[in-house]
Amino acid sequence: MPPGDVHGSGTVLGHGSLAIYPVTGLAEIVPGDDLAGLLMDAVTHVATGDHLAPVRLTDGDVLVVTQKVVSKAEDRLVHIDPGDPGAKQRLVEEESVRIVRRRGDLLITETKHGFICANAGVDLSNVEEGTAALLPIDPDRSARRIREALEHRHGVSVGVIISDTFGRTWRRGVTDVAIGIAGIAGVVDLRGTPDATGRVLEATEVCIADELASAAELVMGKDRGIPAAVIRGVDPRWLRFASVAAEIIRPPDEDLFR
Amino acid sequence: MPPGDVHGSGTVLGHGSLAIYPVTGLAEIVPGDDLAGLLMDAVTHVATGDHLAPVRLTDGDVLVVTQKVVSKAEDRLVHIDPGDPGAKQRLVEEESVRIVRRRGDLLITETKHGFICANAGVDLSNVEEGTAALLPIDPDRSARRIREALEHRHGVSVGVIISDTFGRTWRRGVTDVAIGIAGIAGVVDLRGTPDATGRVLEATEVCIADELASAAELVMGKDRGIPAAVIRGVDPRWLRFASVAAEIIRPPDEDLFR
Repeated sequence: MPPGDVHGSGTVLGHGSLAIYPVTGLAEIVPGDDLAGLLMDAVTHVATGDHLAPVRLTDGDVLVVTQKVVSKAEDRLVHIDPGDPGAKQRLVEEESVRIVRRRGDLLITETKHGFICANAGVDLSNVEEGTAALLPIDPDRSARRIREALEHRHGVSVGVIISDTFGRTWRRGVTDVAIGIAGIAGVVDLRGTPDATGRVLEATEVCIADELASAAELVMGKDRGIPAAVIRGVDPRWLRFASVAAEIIRPPDEDLFR
Repeated sequence: MPPGDVHGSGTVLGHGSLAIYPVTGLAEIVPGDDLAGLLMDAVTHVATGDHLAPVRLTDGDVLVVTQKVVSKAEDRLVHIDPGDPGAKQRLVEEESVRIVRRRGDLLITETKHGFICANAGVDLSNVEEGTAALLPIDPDRSARRIREALEHRHGVSVGVIISDTFGRTWRRGVTDVAIGIAGIAGVVDLRGTPDATGRVLEATEVCIADELASAAELVMGKDRGIPAAVIRGVDPRWLRFASVAAEIIRPPDEDLFR
């Protein structure tokens, strides 16, 4: 079936269109859970508006999963004393290789993965009190495991993005970005592609993994506890099997803001 | 009709889902064009997969329009001598109030609007040779004009985002962001909202306007010349009438990277 003419069951998408479905009904994830299996079960409950015909994951879909449930399934939970005001900061420093900026409670650091973000991704929301969730040790591996489990057990080939919520310089508000990818490109290089006037485009490497993560966030919502979304209609040229999130990290020698 | 149960014509979206349709068939925009009218005509050609029943703009949709066509319609085009290697840099400096970083040809500057971006948004791609496109003078006003024209002439109330393509610190690849908004929030403040465990969320101001711009970019593609997209199914709480893009600009005293 050509991309864009994607039929879920009951859902018809036009050529070049995207649909983004929240994955609801996932139970609270605990360490050791089979996240791929639980996601597969939950995806069959994705609402399509046609309640008789739930969406199934289809080859070429992209499944975006938030870091929080991955960290829970992988037992990246640590105890943190809620009465100790310095506990979080010490944990952040442990998870970091370098502090980029510090102001009051806020630390901008570089994580062991190379991500530069607030508080090294250590998160106290949506986890039990007295507990902090750390980033997965290797988010690409986390993505690859989910992708491979879906392929081997359920025969469906999808891209997987592990997303997290990062702040940005100069602009208010957080957006979701990709911290782990499998089967989907991080950055797509359009340099050298003629634009609509036939002139060669200037630097146009588009971070489609971050754009997909942001798009997925729009249906998840921080306050609704929806930890995953299915994106249907993604350009098949972006389904690359060897991509890793390291391709999204700007090398230090190209970075003007370290 | 409740949000989420959105019917285009022939398209059914599940509760909480989003659909993103590229707006194709727009002719090359020239100065003085009635952009709202041309977009309205083009939107009726938005592909839905059901070719007998084109999508129409519906109350609550968000129309994302790229800066390039807005700049063309508003005649923000200036002559630039392709044989003069310093011409672009002088233009960038004219469009800037401050230079943030400089490396070789690349200037990161603050524009008169307060945006910090590469080359002050001056763009030589997808415009005629010898021409550069500058950012709209007031992208919020550009968004508001399109929104009001659609409302007054066509009786449809939509959010409008003017998008542009910005680089980011620390991460490779560009993503699309909102530089002008009308009828749709820039930043949504979820602080004080209990999370799924009942604990109050930490800083969670989400820049949904940037996420919507990024989501729209996924169906536009730099190399396909599609200058607009319709997003259907947006949370109706985000449809705010008084929002301006200034709410997305981080105030200098909160910014650690100026």
